[in-house]
Amino acid sequence: MTAQIINGRDVASRIQDGIREEVTAFKEKHGFVPGLAVLLVGEDPASAMYVRMKGRRCESVGMNSYTNTLPADSTQGEVIAAVRAFNDDPAVHGILIQLPLPDHIDEEAVLKEVSLAKDVDGFHPVNIGALAMKGRTPTFTPATPTGCMTLIAETGVDVSGKKAVVLGRSNIVGMPMSLMLNNANATVTIVHSRTQNPAEIIKSADILIAAIGKPEYVQADWIKPGAVVIDVGTNQVDDPESERGYKWVGDVDFEGGKEVAGAITIVPGGVGPLTIASLIQNTMKAAKMSVGEEI
Amino acid sequence: MTAQIINGRDVASRIQDGIREEVTAFKEKHGFVPGLAVLLVGEDPASAMYVRMKGRRCESVGMNSYTNTLPADSTQGEVIAAVRAFNDDPAVHGILIQLPLPDHIDEEAVLKEVSLAKDVDGFHPVNIGALAMKGRTPTFTPATPTGCMTLIAETGVDVSGKKAVVLGRSNIVGMPMSLMLNNANATVTIVHSRTQNPAEIIKSADILIAAIGKPEYVQADWIKPGAVVIDVGTNQVDDPESERGYKWVGDVDFEGGKEVAGAITIVPGGVGPLTIASLIQNTMKAAKMSVGEEI
Repeated sequence: MTAQIINGRDVASRIQDGIREEVTAFKEKHGFVPGLAVLLVGEDPASAMYVRMKGRRCESVGMNSYTNTLPADSTQGEVIAAVRAFNDDPAVHGILIQLPLPDHIDEEAVLKEVSLAKDVDGFHPVNIGALAMKGRTPTFTPATPTGCMTLIAETGVDVSGKKAVVLGRSNIVGMPMSLMLNNANATVTIVHSRTQNPAEIIKSADILIAAIGKPEYVQADWIKPGAVVIDVGTNQVDDPESERGYKWVGDVDFEGGKEVAGAITIVPGGVGPLTIASLIQNTMKAAKMSVGEEI
Repeated sequence: MTAQIINGRDVASRIQDGIREEVTAFKEKHGFVPGLAVLLVGEDPASAMYVRMKGRRCESVGMNSYTNTLPADSTQGEVIAAVRAFNDDPAVHGILIQLPLPDHIDEEAVLKEVSLAKDVDGFHPVNIGALAMKGRTPTFTPATPTGCMTLIAETGVDVSGKKAVVLGRSNIVGMPMSLMLNNANATVTIVHSRTQNPAEIIKSADILIAAIGKPEYVQADWIKPGAVVIDVGTNQVDDPESERGYKWVGDVDFEGGKEVAGAITIVPGGVGPLTIASLIQNTMKAAKMSVGEEI
């Protein structure tokens, strides 16, 4: 059996086509376009690259994008002042704080400053609290796990009642992912560095989300035949055969895994494009909320 | 094998003895005692009974307790005004909103009103958000799961690396319980009404927390030999042999379970007393915070 290969670029591109139309209609009606503001502290090249990609994608759907880059040695007060400036700016509908922040900055205190109406990354503690609690609906949900849910939906598999294993428990992916799968009525197990016999638990998963950042950690024979495998990992590994000397691989052995899984994402081009698409969807939603439109 | 029987009354009583001493020392130093305020909306007899028990327990450790009982048809505004009055009252260090609130009241909006410094039940969305996120520490954690963690610690079993199954995903017990066990490095699975083959998953648990409110749902042969079983259920069932015509049973078959488990809580008298003890611990902490004492 060969798995359905999930190409995130195609899915993201379809979502963005829809958003582009919405932006056009929104502009005609309201005279302005949605704007996403990104705050970047320091000059980490990977972060800077992500920020540029987000900006380009915004522009491609007709949204405005703004970036404020602060020096790595900015004070807590300076970072918070930059957040507040975005909060007060009526042209900004969504605010993204590029994580991680430098070590001397209190991340929680900064994320808490983001206006709830503009928290398109869904990391305000109130949004995470609402995600955790039954009967509450967060205004926004974090982009990467939201994108993973979209990719699972693409396969046509009904999450309800399925066994889901989330590999990794980061604040950005694993934790909100496990809450979202639980809210969708999956039976969720979180596997992490202290888990004993991870292979055995992973093998029980109808839906596997791999988000631990270990290159090709999940072996093909750890995958339940027919499972949906969503690989969030993007790991750079040496590749003497490639001109640039390296290649990107996920947290799952893709070549082996695609012979066992029912559906599997490619890396790169699987989850990554959906993260940005989800962020743009959230920004569209924030802009609609700002003019009191039903969402 | 017969399990270690966990008697929550003994554990709670030991905790309360410690708090009683702390209250005495606190009063000598500061001239006042900690106070817990409870807001009860409506006249549900079970809720009224819990509130009375909390009041009595506070008094037994030398704390003040206040209860504001509002009629069941109170408006949202009246309920929020009552919360704010507690927020503003310097004699009140901890505030408890007795749940559930009547259906016409927006629970989330009410819980959000509780001052973070007085949120001894840990249900403010910011406290739940902090519980969910790595590297954050909630000021207070919900009383029942905190009590369960205390009972697990009583058995001497190290949670880290163990497989834990949480049966039920309520906001009050299951959800915060799963987050606390994950934070303690257990490998956590949440089992709920949509789970397929719950018995099989339950059987894999080194630590089982049962909190679904189904009398004796967990059969003895679903329990892993040697497991720690914490039974949060308190279900009233008919008992023609008893004078009052009913008895209380947990979510686990206790008689069968104690022959298989390594440790098991009794019902009643297992988790219940710990819930109140945890609430009192949190109120002590809130009072210390109010005078700037290290906690």
